[in-house]
Amino acid sequence: MVDVIEILKRYSEDVNKEIDEALNTLEPETLRDASTHLVKAGGKKLRPALEVLACQAVGGETEKALKAAASLELIHTFSLIHDDIMDNDDTRRGMPAVHKVWGEPMAILAGDTLFAKAYETIIKTADDNIPYERVIDALRVEVDACIKICEGQALDMEFEDTFEVSEEDYLNMIYKKTGALISAATSAGAIIGGASTYQIEALTNYGKSLGIAFQIQDDYIDLTGDESIGKPVGSDLVEGKKTIMVIHALQKANPEDHDRLIELLTAHDESIIPEAMEILNKYGAINYARALAYDNVIHAKESLTLLPDSEAKNTLMKLADFVFNRKS
Amino acid sequence: MVDVIEILKRYSEDVNKEIDEALNTLEPETLRDASTHLVKAGGKKLRPALEVLACQAVGGETEKALKAAASLELIHTFSLIHDDIMDNDDTRRGMPAVHKVWGEPMAILAGDTLFAKAYETIIKTADDNIPYERVIDALRVEVDACIKICEGQALDMEFEDTFEVSEEDYLNMIYKKTGALISAATSAGAIIGGASTYQIEALTNYGKSLGIAFQIQDDYIDLTGDESIGKPVGSDLVEGKKTIMVIHALQKANPEDHDRLIELLTAHDESIIPEAMEILNKYGAINYARALAYDNVIHAKESLTLLPDSEAKNTLMKLADFVFNRKS
Repeated sequence: MVDVIEILKRYSEDVNKEIDEALNTLEPETLRDASTHLVKAGGKKLRPALEVLACQAVGGETEKALKAAASLELIHTFSLIHDDIMDNDDTRRGMPAVHKVWGEPMAILAGDTLFAKAYETIIKTADDNIPYERVIDALRVEVDACIKICEGQALDMEFEDTFEVSEEDYLNMIYKKTGALISAATSAGAIIGGASTYQIEALTNYGKSLGIAFQIQDDYIDLTGDESIGKPVGSDLVEGKKTIMVIHALQKANPEDHDRLIELLTAHDESIIPEAMEILNKYGAINYARALAYDNVIHAKESLTLLPDSEAKNTLMKLADFVFNRKS
Repeated sequence: MVDVIEILKRYSEDVNKEIDEALNTLEPETLRDASTHLVKAGGKKLRPALEVLACQAVGGETEKALKAAASLELIHTFSLIHDDIMDNDDTRRGMPAVHKVWGEPMAILAGDTLFAKAYETIIKTADDNIPYERVIDALRVEVDACIKICEGQALDMEFEDTFEVSEEDYLNMIYKKTGALISAATSAGAIIGGASTYQIEALTNYGKSLGIAFQIQDDYIDLTGDESIGKPVGSDLVEGKKTIMVIHALQKANPEDHDRLIELLTAHDESIIPEAMEILNKYGAINYARALAYDNVIHAKESLTLLPDSEAKNTLMKLADFVFNRKS
């Protein structure tokens, strides 16, 4: 596990340099500070690493992938800032959320700024001797992911008010909310690296499956993980979130347990956690989620089969296992 | 005046078609409704018209300019939705603001969606046989304007808490907040139309001066105009806004009037309007603003001198006068 974290960190410095360069000219200072706050707070930098590795896996140069990598991190950070306002979350990456420090108006603006800066940054890839057509293709992939992120967040918000969420609805929502940008990362990396059509498809599929596994694992960690990530265990249950575990249990449960689970999930109180967990376990919901995440990890790895062997390909394989095994 | 309004409407239908096409696939329905709300409410469609006219003025085809035109309107609408949340404005274009109908979270998301859709739409210009390099150049201009819009809004918010705003500060703020996107419209139109470097520069300068005149006129209308635009006359004074009139009066006033004007502008009460107007008039602030707007209109028109004569050029000339003479 340690070496994967090292890999994720390997490109962090270069990517941060690109991001700093993009943001340090912003005025006024307040906007600059609000925009850089979360970037400085760290984060795993999973998307930039995936983008660079995908570029390497098709024989592309790392240097030329860095601007798109920074761009993906800027998009991710923009979406976190706006999500935290919408979900009224107080902390992020162990620090107060942007809107908690600068207020909602400045946080909205900081998100918008990072969004625009993301595009400015990927467009600069054209200065790295990447053909214009390829830059446009990479951009198209990123823009498409941004639209999906918005749709995914809207679906997630809509699911808050209903228990009529099917597994298909859930998978569509997490693909859009989380999978699309992770998939855009490997896809853009492949495009910038000069990949063939089938290589782009392979790496896009890898990213899509990885992204879905990533989100299922996120939901799993919330139920079982430690509290070091800053969220109390079971907080999704208290919030009544429609995770894959909840959807599966509601689908399998007898009428009595079904109605009781809904009762518990609408109480919005910490005291419901043990009983809700019991119902989830009774219907094998946690094992089901693990299996579904694992299927996606296998699918992600299989997608890479046709790529030539390389260190980057190996690392992408390891990253898939990391996503399944991570505890935070 | 009537024929200019007709000109603005001339391309509205085509532009709306592009926008509808961009938005009608959005899911869920709530996000689609919130995203299309303001678009359906109308608006002058000044930016799309400017983009198409700039394209025509350099000999480009109208058809090929429509996607970028739609893209500019999407950016404008995104910024209005987010501004209304930040400024806590209840109405826009005679309708309730998006956040008043769907709540702040969905309004943030609707803005983000339009922002992403704007880029998706301009990228599609590549499908209209426009060389990739030119699409990237047009995109660069739009992205740069988006960053400036965010900076301009942040500066505007910052000015709320201080009376130490110079005319230079003000002009920088309104250029970023309003001028940059209007200038991006004429610049992108020229680029897509296949303009030479000096033609692009001429049309960019035209847009910049026009945009500044437009914003000064907006401030002027607030003080003198009718209430048919949905804002009470003098509302900027009640809000204590640092318009060019206020900045000029504070700069010229004797210490007594200076301090009294600040007192009035910090009262946030409608009763201050007559006395504040009196001080503005005493120091010729309103005439000063008119003269400054007029200078910018003249400069905008002069920028077009080097362009070949055409109907589009004539219309751009008329539009400059329209901006100076409009009452709403």
